[in-house]
Amino acid sequence: MRPFKALISLDEALTICMDAVSPVATKESLPIERAAGRVSGSEARARISVPLADRAAMDGYAVRAADTYGAGKFKPKVLQMIETLYANTVPKRRVLRGKCIEVATGSTIPEGADAVVMVEDTEKKGDRISIHSPVHPGENISPEGEDIKKGDKVISEGEVLSPANIGALAAVGVRRTFVYRKPVVAVLTTGDEVIEPGRPIRPGQVYDINAYTLSAVIEENGGEPKRFPRAPDEIESLRASLRSAAKCDLVVFSGGSSVGEKDLIMDALKQLGEVKFHGVAVKPGKPTVFGRVGKTPVLGMPGYPTSCLSNAYMILVPMLRKMARLPPKVEKTIELPLSRRVVSAIGRTEFHTVKIEKGRAVPVYKESGAITSMANADGYIKIPANVDLVEAGEIVQVILF
Amino acid sequence: MRPFKALISLDEALTICMDAVSPVATKESLPIERAAGRVSGSEARARISVPLADRAAMDGYAVRAADTYGAGKFKPKVLQMIETLYANTVPKRRVLRGKCIEVATGSTIPEGADAVVMVEDTEKKGDRISIHSPVHPGENISPEGEDIKKGDKVISEGEVLSPANIGALAAVGVRRTFVYRKPVVAVLTTGDEVIEPGRPIRPGQVYDINAYTLSAVIEENGGEPKRFPRAPDEIESLRASLRSAAKCDLVVFSGGSSVGEKDLIMDALKQLGEVKFHGVAVKPGKPTVFGRVGKTPVLGMPGYPTSCLSNAYMILVPMLRKMARLPPKVEKTIELPLSRRVVSAIGRTEFHTVKIEKGRAVPVYKESGAITSMANADGYIKIPANVDLVEAGEIVQVILF
Repeated sequence: MRPFKALISLDEALTICMDAVSPVATKESLPIERAAGRVSGSEARARISVPLADRAAMDGYAVRAADTYGAGKFKPKVLQMIETLYANTVPKRRVLRGKCIEVATGSTIPEGADAVVMVEDTEKKGDRISIHSPVHPGENISPEGEDIKKGDKVISEGEVLSPANIGALAAVGVRRTFVYRKPVVAVLTTGDEVIEPGRPIRPGQVYDINAYTLSAVIEENGGEPKRFPRAPDEIESLRASLRSAAKCDLVVFSGGSSVGEKDLIMDALKQLGEVKFHGVAVKPGKPTVFGRVGKTPVLGMPGYPTSCLSNAYMILVPMLRKMARLPPKVEKTIELPLSRRVVSAIGRTEFHTVKIEKGRAVPVYKESGAITSMANADGYIKIPANVDLVEAGEIVQVILF
Repeated sequence: MRPFKALISLDEALTICMDAVSPVATKESLPIERAAGRVSGSEARARISVPLADRAAMDGYAVRAADTYGAGKFKPKVLQMIETLYANTVPKRRVLRGKCIEVATGSTIPEGADAVVMVEDTEKKGDRISIHSPVHPGENISPEGEDIKKGDKVISEGEVLSPANIGALAAVGVRRTFVYRKPVVAVLTTGDEVIEPGRPIRPGQVYDINAYTLSAVIEENGGEPKRFPRAPDEIESLRASLRSAAKCDLVVFSGGSSVGEKDLIMDALKQLGEVKFHGVAVKPGKPTVFGRVGKTPVLGMPGYPTSCLSNAYMILVPMLRKMARLPPKVEKTIELPLSRRVVSAIGRTEFHTVKIEKGRAVPVYKESGAITSMANADGYIKIPANVDLVEAGEIVQVILF
């Protein structure tokens, strides 16, 4: 059996992992209705102005502003209505002195007119329109390009597309847009004892948990998980699996990174590439390995489900978001008193999952093998490597899942 | 033209809308790898214990604890190794006094053994194993059901499934699970002036923005948007569209809820069902309408893109999350000084979009027709109906998008 060499700190591990990954460079074209939440692959400039032409900002009457000067509630100016426009009708006539054209919000402003009187400030009798309030030139008109000018930048390269960004693309008539491809992450389970959920089970076997938790975390953080069939514990099969998985942007395997005799995947990794570290001073999650096969980074997670998922949040998520060009995840935190004393080992960063109950953070961490340590938790607290004890009642910062 | 009757407050509007929608009741079965982020439709109880049987929590040797009592670094107890187990091998032999069985983490504990000595505390010479440290009964063993006991509740009905929850389902061998169906939201664009992005455009026409922003917001908040073809501005077509859309869980239309003569959709809605309110004291977003066709709630949004999207966030999102059984959206807020004075109308709740620049909230709101009012913003400030002015330098709460 091969004991761990010196453990490195979580911060060192993270630095090595982050330095080893690059943002994806390739792009794909998507219809805009599928692009929300994706990262824009190119700058988009407006090919048209929005509005396309001066248009009415109100329902009312397009007028020559000068014709309304001096109008008042009790001494209206009366204009002759010569046409009615809906939002989409193209004006045929010109507004001359003493004339007006009825417009709807969005109607193109007819030639000659330089303002719109709101319908609320008018009275209509046949084609005689009484104007009760003066307007100044430009009033109630959205000029051409007021929202977006032809040539304006609508979207920047690298922007995460919000619903409003998608709307801005639609506004200038864009139907498809380039976004960065999602990083594809190979998810590889090892261990002859691991079987698929749904199959019958016997003692000595466990259902595959890690492939499911890892895939869910990868999807939540802008990646595309690609599951590989479980490789049997034989060096040749593991080498073949790793080689095939290394065609993805990143490989994450779980299991087989501990120090048991049968942990052949470490050998396979050394034969095919390089191990950069093995063992991190963190609990749960110590038996974590990082290396590469060819140019592809390979992250090896502990087989224990809580260790694996905890490390996915601590190490995999920042790597993946960098690859996906997404901003770092915003942590939601809350400060609460701890319900009972928690003891921690000096020299290791420890994460303790907690549940929030009656305004207190209640530790629910069982052991690194227990998925319920995570599934029953609302969040976790982080105990730095130089702290060995947090007393009951101390205020702790809970990072919410 | 039909002016608005009395406007109701945003809070009243929201209460009416929320009261009119119910959480979806129907469920669908999904493979667990597609269930993350969905709402569990049923309680799940464990059909097996996890671990299935007592298992080794460490690599080492399964022993009778009593055989190790008194062992020390310089006076080891020596035991005879009679078998080697991997994680998945079923033990064939029984551990009698003076004997031990080599185990890997996860190995089933053989009969007779009641503890595991860590490999680090042993030395191996052939089948002679020197034990350097005593163990107590149960040490380094994960007992059957330690993580999850057969019959334990693994998932509650109504829980939003996290990656860890998916892992807990996998742990007990669940392959598929019931989740609540996503509410299907009909998205209906009205207005003869509205055309699809990608088509040629002329003055008097605008590209459809709202169908895209609404669909993106619906997807972000647990709904399934279903786009309907744009209905022409004729009462019969609009009635047919509304009737067909009302087969969904909720109908959202945009445009045609202002007071222009051609706003036939209001008539169609009145003929087919009921209007509960029309006009909200909010800016942007005043010409908002709510009613029903049959039992289906119908939310009519202003045609102006910013009004429409703003109302989607204020009114549609809370309705939709209630229907989807998702918890209310957690707002991310930040307090910043305002860069310049903002004037607001008394009697209307106003939302002003802002960009964060140099530690200040800079208003970027142009007008309700401008999608860039939203697309260029980082968030918004809310000015209550009883406030008419916020001075430059005042600290405002920015709600981030």
